[in-house]
Amino acid sequence: MDIKAYMGQLGQQARKASREMGRADTGKKNLALIKIAEAIAANREQLSIENQKDLRAGQENGLEAALLDRLELKPSTIDAMTEGLKQVAALADPVGGISDLNYRPSGIQVGQMRVPLGVIGIIYESRPNVTIDAAALCLKSGNACILRGGSEAIHSNQAIAACIAEGLAAAGLPAEAVQVVETTDRAAVGELISMDSYVDVIVPRGGRSLIERISNESTIPVIKHLDGICHVYIDDKADLNKAVNIAVNAKTHRYGVCNAMETLLVAEGIATKVLPRLAEQLLVKGVELRGCLKTCSLLPDCVRATEQDWVTEYLAPVLSIKIVESLDEAIEHINRYSSGHTESIVTEDYTLARRFLREVDSSSVMVNASTRFADGFEYGLGAEIGISTDKLHARGPVGLNGLTTLKYIVLGDGQIRQ
Amino acid sequence: MDIKAYMGQLGQQARKASREMGRADTGKKNLALIKIAEAIAANREQLSIENQKDLRAGQENGLEAALLDRLELKPSTIDAMTEGLKQVAALADPVGGISDLNYRPSGIQVGQMRVPLGVIGIIYESRPNVTIDAAALCLKSGNACILRGGSEAIHSNQAIAACIAEGLAAAGLPAEAVQVVETTDRAAVGELISMDSYVDVIVPRGGRSLIERISNESTIPVIKHLDGICHVYIDDKADLNKAVNIAVNAKTHRYGVCNAMETLLVAEGIATKVLPRLAEQLLVKGVELRGCLKTCSLLPDCVRATEQDWVTEYLAPVLSIKIVESLDEAIEHINRYSSGHTESIVTEDYTLARRFLREVDSSSVMVNASTRFADGFEYGLGAEIGISTDKLHARGPVGLNGLTTLKYIVLGDGQIRQ
Repeated sequence: MDIKAYMGQLGQQARKASREMGRADTGKKNLALIKIAEAIAANREQLSIENQKDLRAGQENGLEAALLDRLELKPSTIDAMTEGLKQVAALADPVGGISDLNYRPSGIQVGQMRVPLGVIGIIYESRPNVTIDAAALCLKSGNACILRGGSEAIHSNQAIAACIAEGLAAAGLPAEAVQVVETTDRAAVGELISMDSYVDVIVPRGGRSLIERISNESTIPVIKHLDGICHVYIDDKADLNKAVNIAVNAKTHRYGVCNAMETLLVAEGIATKVLPRLAEQLLVKGVELRGCLKTCSLLPDCVRATEQDWVTEYLAPVLSIKIVESLDEAIEHINRYSSGHTESIVTEDYTLARRFLREVDSSSVMVNASTRFADGFEYGLGAEIGISTDKLHARGPVGLNGLTTLKYIVLGDGQIRQ
Repeated sequence: MDIKAYMGQLGQQARKASREMGRADTGKKNLALIKIAEAIAANREQLSIENQKDLRAGQENGLEAALLDRLELKPSTIDAMTEGLKQVAALADPVGGISDLNYRPSGIQVGQMRVPLGVIGIIYESRPNVTIDAAALCLKSGNACILRGGSEAIHSNQAIAACIAEGLAAAGLPAEAVQVVETTDRAAVGELISMDSYVDVIVPRGGRSLIERISNESTIPVIKHLDGICHVYIDDKADLNKAVNIAVNAKTHRYGVCNAMETLLVAEGIATKVLPRLAEQLLVKGVELRGCLKTCSLLPDCVRATEQDWVTEYLAPVLSIKIVESLDEAIEHINRYSSGHTESIVTEDYTLARRFLREVDSSSVMVNASTRFADGFEYGLGAEIGISTDKLHARGPVGLNGLTTLKYIVLGDGQIRQ
């Protein structure tokens, strides 16, 4: 197989399909999403058979249990896929929306229209349900996409691709609007991320090493989803109950997620009141505590944190704790060590809350809420293709809008420049 | 001079200043802009003396007349600089603006706050007044900036930098908010575009070769301003007067600008009526016409266009003309050959106008208006730092908003994830 020629063909077909998708009306796009959901539901058995092939191969190749778990298309996973498709169908169509259309002194009207980016390349790891999530978001936002899933999920992904093709055909949309790469050759990734003329943006979904490698090598803009080293800052004026509840939730609701708290900052004036109560609850849940000198003098079960702890995304039942003198020290610590994902202040003080919101430079900044809320569904985006830690284009949870761009439109009546 | 150490120091200082600028209130930023304008006005003589040094050196080094012209700080250029500063001061402050703050089912409020990007690196060529334009936009949008002007303008730029420093100091803002690189060593550019940890975005302003080189070598996101191969499409249903006026204006109002028309597309049904009238006016103004076979059979003074003509940004009194069968062929030609800058349709047909607006994939798409309107001032942005031909982040004229980003803010009352 000539990978370069094969990928080039996918690219060319995607570019062509993207033009058609850009002008496809909302009804057709929604119909395709519903028809894909129906095809998934009708082919549950076939999907399971193909998924079993991947699972068997994974076991033979000694895949870790966690990876095998992600690879499995359980009945509940399939339900979630069809449910997700219906939800995306129910979302408002962002394409073609016009904002701020105003008359200018020259007599022209100037506004901005939301339009698809064009062709999205998505590279992901073992979870085959990403194939559906990604396809649904790209389809609704009027983009064509090229999906490159993990090689260990190749049979599952091809079976899902067949359902997608069925749905697109039923709605009269081009089959090439969603193309799933059929080869497991890794050279396909290298081609995908360098086809500048066919692909407008690359979205890598997976672990840090995948994302860093793609970002470094891609000649196409990348929407990055990197670490979440998230902070909660408990201020002197915090309500004690809110502080304890939020910190426990942010750390222990789920450990392996990017919006979990990894470092807790506590104002000096409230430390003796809040830390023992909090530590008690965290220790019961088996969380290991690593603190600064002051923290350790308050908490007997705490070990000393090193510089490395402040820059570590544990994704595990471990929490680093630092006692700070003031909001300024908290913000300084955050802006220095945070990955720019999500930070939350717990306080009843209006002025400090207002300052925290403005001065903390992260994709989500919160007052009196758990960092776990940083999520496309919780924010009302309906779905997300990732959480961007970049500053340009899309920042924070990326939904349909993040897969679109704004172009200027000008309506005139024969105006010329004087 | 150790360029790496020097640039690293500028970067570190800019990062620090950017934190202060991000929280600076609007009044202080406006005061700084006014005080810089006052300093420029008070130092006209000194600016002229320093500018003369650059002009003499330029003459000795055999700079082209056009470059010497751009290098000169005429009294009118200095007036425009102070006027520009006052205009930027009068613009609304985008920083801190909150949009779409809505309650979610969980009880949290979620919205987006507009915030500065951080540190902007700007690389430009001979015109010293860019130093003021760029500094003003970065300052107002709450960013710190590092400005690297052309080596031939070094004395002028240093004199302008002194005025900027005076204005910043008078307003109590950090001097490092605007830093003008003091060395003409080209290695400084290489450092600037690779200091990822200190610089958030690079804006190159200048010719195509500068922008392409910077884009290829930068490890920092670049806001690109590339070619303008702009099209006007005269539809069958066009008003003849509007068509002729718009086409003449788009081609001849100014030749060397990116929003000038380079290719005219004409519907077959109107070609015999519109082309002779149009050609007459264009030929009087000395415009060379290069057409497709059909065009040449209609216009005796037309030479045959080659494939190369469709992809050329003439920036000169030359126009390529193609007769097309339909809107579809026009859109196909545009999406194939256009640089994605600005395209305009002339028509009285509602349905075709609506299709053109949606289906043409360029940063500005117009109906019955001259492409020359694609400009930050004409669009009401107040000023522009360039016209982006990228799709991501900023597209079209880039004003204050293009130098900012949106972060999510969440206001809660102790909410935790269930």
